[in-house]
Amino acid sequence: MKVSIVGATGYGGAELIRIINNHSHLTLASVHSSSKTGQAISNEYPHFMHEVDDILLEINPEQMAKTSDLVFLATPNGISKGLTPFFKDLNIKIIDLSGDLRIKDRDEYQKWYKKEAADEEVIGRAVYGLSEWNKENILQADMIANPGCFPTATLLGLAPLIQNFSAIEDIIIDAKTGVSGAGRSLSAASHFSEVNENLKIYKVLEHQHTPEIEQQIKAWNQHTPNISFSAHLVPMTRGIMATMYVKVDRGTSFQEIWDLFKSAYEDKPFVRLHPPGSFPSTKHVYGSNYCDIGVAYDDRTNRITIVSVIDNLMKGAAGQAVQNANLMFGFNETDGLQYLPLFP
Amino acid sequence: MKVSIVGATGYGGAELIRIINNHSHLTLASVHSSSKTGQAISNEYPHFMHEVDDILLEINPEQMAKTSDLVFLATPNGISKGLTPFFKDLNIKIIDLSGDLRIKDRDEYQKWYKKEAADEEVIGRAVYGLSEWNKENILQADMIANPGCFPTATLLGLAPLIQNFSAIEDIIIDAKTGVSGAGRSLSAASHFSEVNENLKIYKVLEHQHTPEIEQQIKAWNQHTPNISFSAHLVPMTRGIMATMYVKVDRGTSFQEIWDLFKSAYEDKPFVRLHPPGSFPSTKHVYGSNYCDIGVAYDDRTNRITIVSVIDNLMKGAAGQAVQNANLMFGFNETDGLQYLPLFP
Amino acid sequence: MKVSIVGATGYGGAELIRIINNHSHLTLASVHSSSKTGQAISNEYPHFMHEVDDILLEINPEQMAKTSDLVFLATPNGISKGLTPFFKDLNIKIIDLSGDLRIKDRDEYQKWYKKEAADEEVIGRAVYGLSEWNKENILQADMIANPGCFPTATLLGLAPLIQNFSAIEDIIIDAKTGVSGAGRSLSAASHFSEVNENLKIYKVLEHQHTPEIEQQIKAWNQHTPNISFSAHLVPMTRGIMATMYVKVDRGTSFQEIWDLFKSAYEDKPFVRLHPPGSFPSTKHVYGSNYCDIGVAYDDRTNRITIVSVIDNLMKGAAGQAVQNANLMFGFNETDGLQYLPLFP
Amino acid sequence: MKVSIVGATGYGGAELIRIINNHSHLTLASVHSSSKTGQAISNEYPHFMHEVDDILLEINPEQMAKTSDLVFLATPNGISKGLTPFFKDLNIKIIDLSGDLRIKDRDEYQKWYKKEAADEEVIGRAVYGLSEWNKENILQADMIANPGCFPTATLLGLAPLIQNFSAIEDIIIDAKTGVSGAGRSLSAASHFSEVNENLKIYKVLEHQHTPEIEQQIKAWNQHTPNISFSAHLVPMTRGIMATMYVKVDRGTSFQEIWDLFKSAYEDKPFVRLHPPGSFPSTKHVYGSNYCDIGVAYDDRTNRITIVSVIDNLMKGAAGQAVQNANLMFGFNETDGLQYLPLFP
Repeated sequence: MKVSIVGATGYGGAELIRIINNHSHLTLASVHSSSKTGQAISNEYPHFMHEVDDILLEINPEQMAKTSDLVFLATPNGISKGLTPFFKDLNIKIIDLSGDLRIKDRDEYQKWYKKEAADEEVIGRAVYGLSEWNKENILQADMIANPGCFPTATLLGLAPLIQNFSAIEDIIIDAKTGVSGAGRSLSAASHFSEVNENLKIYKVLEHQHTPEIEQQIKAWNQHTPNISFSAHLVPMTRGIMATMYVKVDRGTSFQEIWDLFKSAYEDKPFVRLHPPGSFPSTKHVYGSNYCDIGVAYDDRTNRITIVSVIDNLMKGAAGQAVQNANLMFGFNETDGLQYLPLFP
Repeated sequence: MKVSIVGATGYGGAELIRIINNHSHLTLASVHSSSKTGQAISNEYPHFMHEVDDILLEINPEQMAKTSDLVFLATPNGISKGLTPFFKDLNIKIIDLSGDLRIKDRDEYQKWYKKEAADEEVIGRAVYGLSEWNKENILQADMIANPGCFPTATLLGLAPLIQNFSAIEDIIIDAKTGVSGAGRSLSAASHFSEVNENLKIYKVLEHQHTPEIEQQIKAWNQHTPNISFSAHLVPMTRGIMATMYVKVDRGTSFQEIWDLFKSAYEDKPFVRLHPPGSFPSTKHVYGSNYCDIGVAYDDRTNRITIVSVIDNLMKGAAGQAVQNANLMFGFNETDGLQYLPLFP
Repeated sequence: MKVSIVGATGYGGAELIRIINNHSHLTLASVHSSSKTGQAISNEYPHFMHEVDDILLEINPEQMAKTSDLVFLATPNGISKGLTPFFKDLNIKIIDLSGDLRIKDRDEYQKWYKKEAADEEVIGRAVYGLSEWNKENILQADMIANPGCFPTATLLGLAPLIQNFSAIEDIIIDAKTGVSGAGRSLSAASHFSEVNENLKIYKVLEHQHTPEIEQQIKAWNQHTPNISFSAHLVPMTRGIMATMYVKVDRGTSFQEIWDLFKSAYEDKPFVRLHPPGSFPSTKHVYGSNYCDIGVAYDDRTNRITIVSVIDNLMKGAAGQAVQNANLMFGFNETDGLQYLPLFP
Repeated sequence: MKVSIVGATGYGGAELIRIINNHSHLTLASVHSSSKTGQAISNEYPHFMHEVDDILLEINPEQMAKTSDLVFLATPNGISKGLTPFFKDLNIKIIDLSGDLRIKDRDEYQKWYKKEAADEEVIGRAVYGLSEWNKENILQADMIANPGCFPTATLLGLAPLIQNFSAIEDIIIDAKTGVSGAGRSLSAASHFSEVNENLKIYKVLEHQHTPEIEQQIKAWNQHTPNISFSAHLVPMTRGIMATMYVKVDRGTSFQEIWDLFKSAYEDKPFVRLHPPGSFPSTKHVYGSNYCDIGVAYDDRTNRITIVSVIDNLMKGAAGQAVQNANLMFGFNETDGLQYLPLFP
């Protein structure tokens, strides 16, 4: 199958290229950019030199639909919702890595993203691409809203509790991310000397991934409270860790929690559960599509601690996008994603 | 006044030397080490070269009491409780930077530290050195249990709530630290290639700073729950951030919370409150004795978020120790600590 | 073909596992360790969890020869020379990643390594595995001395000059490495707080890779001077850059230099030449087997600057070892090594 | 004495504020910026909060001359040469931290900086502020061209050789810098994800500090060759290391070299010579005004290796600027600069 990438000069786009280049069933048809048209992608990214030297093309949906079976939209928030209508009647699948198509409630999108929402029809058509928990719908979909990086780590960590307890009392999510999550656009917040040897909290109570998480957990279980979510910027390039503190509506035990996680994930190839007493680090999934999870239960407070880590550019973006493409095309879910993590 | 340092080759000891060297009222009498006796401290730490070239001496309490007015015990947990008896009848003040004298309940110490506790008499004599909130007792003390790094950041962040609300419903503390907090002893957990570009959680539900925090908050307010505390290792050398999520026993507002913090800290020189909507980063206090705090209130969840940062080697160890020495000697609290943070 | 790894708990060993796990013609027969026998390798390296859970076995050459066609010795310097005799009459190929078999002159080895050299017979049998420039011999070999990380970057950068100019006047090699090159053994030199935000020079004039480089360049061209070599420790995990300053015996030009490099490497899949005026960064080859090279010529000083980068664990160790295994087994040189670098 | 700072929002400006705030003889009169006028400096730099909250003012030379005895121009290259004429007939001393006034030959400036040079009269008046080696002229000066960061580390390392050998055969300078040297302006080259875990070489053969170094060494000794200079960007915030490889015109010995360095620097408070066999790391001078130097001699190649480290924002910029201000005002050279380095 042939695929094209819009927004190929961003980090998500570059990671898609890396994966596709080694994927046995996907071929890169073309790479597109609005700003660097005419340059070779390997000029922007010399690590591709000699291997992927494609020229960056203009974004031309009709042309792309002729040469590609699927397009990845790896564009910043606010762009893809303007692009999707042009692909409407064309015979091409779409996977959107931005936040534009994820929030079903347009008002919520507008409140948190502070941008105009996409058309209702487009939003309605888009299937939320949390591969492990929405597989049936993804198999049928022709348009995917690929989940955000924080929601992916968070939802995979919360799912066994939300889906199995009758009610959840409170949920606090303390999330930490590497800097590549902020993308390649220059900003003081990503300036090396301001980030290195520094730890910041940002968008306190305002992070746009909050409604995405709440939408899904409330869909799983209506007896779920609003979340307290905060995001921290860690002086590293890749990796997300979500540390989650959850109280359920009744007493429980480590064994009960453990069994829920075990049965939820034992057949899911990309989710790995740490043995009791052991917890994942972000480097354990570096460069890979895994989500590693550890759980603990504190009877002093009756609170469950869940630690979930992903590589934000892989399972948090490009990796999960390819996982979804595999599902949409009927390939093996793990095709092209069987890298072991890079350590150290 | 003359001071000596036991454990001068550790990071806390080295930081004490740095401060004392520029302190107008304190002079370094001698530096002591159990392992590197006979070497110059500048051999261990070439950054002291030409400025502090003192030879590391054996630990000899009687001799030290003759030449020093105060001794800093900057030793690992488990050592100082064996040393303090030797200083008992000598005319010398003691500031212990380890955890040995902080926990009043010997069973709790033994449960969390997994070591034998100090003698009751010594524990009873030691005053908890949280400078901002125990000043009266510190002024009279001759033995100080200098607070831990996480408890310092946490307690300064929680104090205005704990002291002023009639009851607290729950407290979650998600703490993050730079690697220097683990000290200078070699361990896989501090090996560069295992830490760099990595984020870890450690001692989940088992951190020995948990009882130290609970002891103080319950002393301030008996209607305070057990805490959920977890510690993360961030790939940076210095800095602690405690992100705290607190629910009080009734509805509140940002304005009420803000006023509590403002009145708690407006006269305390080392605690700086960020303006509404702004939050501190660890680099804002790098190399200094400040604790910077930001607060937020979320009416979606009725939860208060408090962000508190310190330099773990300064306000979290050597800086607060000197602040306490200043109080014990009747100096100005800020003497020798008026460095601005190093940025970037 | 089946392979086994001795020293699987080191970083080189772990990287071999990562490569072999995705290699279509190599299968991992067994992993061996002298210290962690009986544990699962995924216990040491949780990033392997669920994918490579092999138990670490004792080092038993006879047994290994029965189940493996080739053994990688990924042991520290000084170990493999004691192991190789046990494999002597067994039908198994050997690739030694340590420095033990590289130096033909036993006195030189002893002078620089400050250890007893291997037996002459073993040294004589070992073929130096600089894949790009010793291919013919490697194809025939049954024992490979896999090159050191600095020599690999350096020799690939120097080869076109040394091989083509009649004489070289002087060679200065200023090398910089990430910390993983120092391995997984604990040392103050690899302690995070001592390395981070720090740049060190080490083993000035004493680095054991000096004779390895000189041996090869003098073999290529006897009119080659002794080198000035120094190594620096950079606060990053992976990556080597060798910046080389070379004066040849006569006037030259950028065009002449450029043509030499171009013709030397245009048919070598893992060496990529940067276009004029552009230079490689270590991240351009991160996690891959590439060696990227840039060259410049300064007519103000008649000096050539060559910049050569590799990933020290890949082309500088495990990657080149697998490249050599591919050659020894008659596979395609690039099999199992066609990863694109990980960026960012 | 009262001082003002133009370009206070840059890293050099911020470092000047940090030093002056603790300086017993200098007081900050005003801070100036062309872009952030009207804001508090502590808004830009929250680490100054509560301690330095001055409002950033417009650049008004006449007004500044009324309230200040000296102005520091901490502006990017190309700005101060346009400002200095306005200060011409005013009674105020000037220390320019940019490169504008350093190069006496206007054509050289234009060739390397690719900008119009300053007026000859201004250039003629400016005294090169290499404090250790130009003290007599600095004492008399009213306008200082403060040296560049690389030239400072390099020239302090080369001086004893250049000044004492009759001729130098060749000089190779391999320089490495932390990222703060690139300033606070956003650029891809300072974007965290592009710099972290990466090592780059930049401005190969084109660095504008080349003529500054050559101008001074040729002034010291006309029998000095052109230099080979290259600069590398290291993933750390602060610190410069210059590794220098020098061949003199005749045979020499370690002892001769060592004696030259010892006698050159034994009376200079900010230059510290490492004992034989020991070399400085950048962290040894972190946050301080020291330049630490180590030397070696290789009789295999008759080449001298010199390692010189500074903190680029201190001895490489703001620290040396204050050192020069001290000299101009007749204070003790070390006033306000007696910080010990921050380690770790």
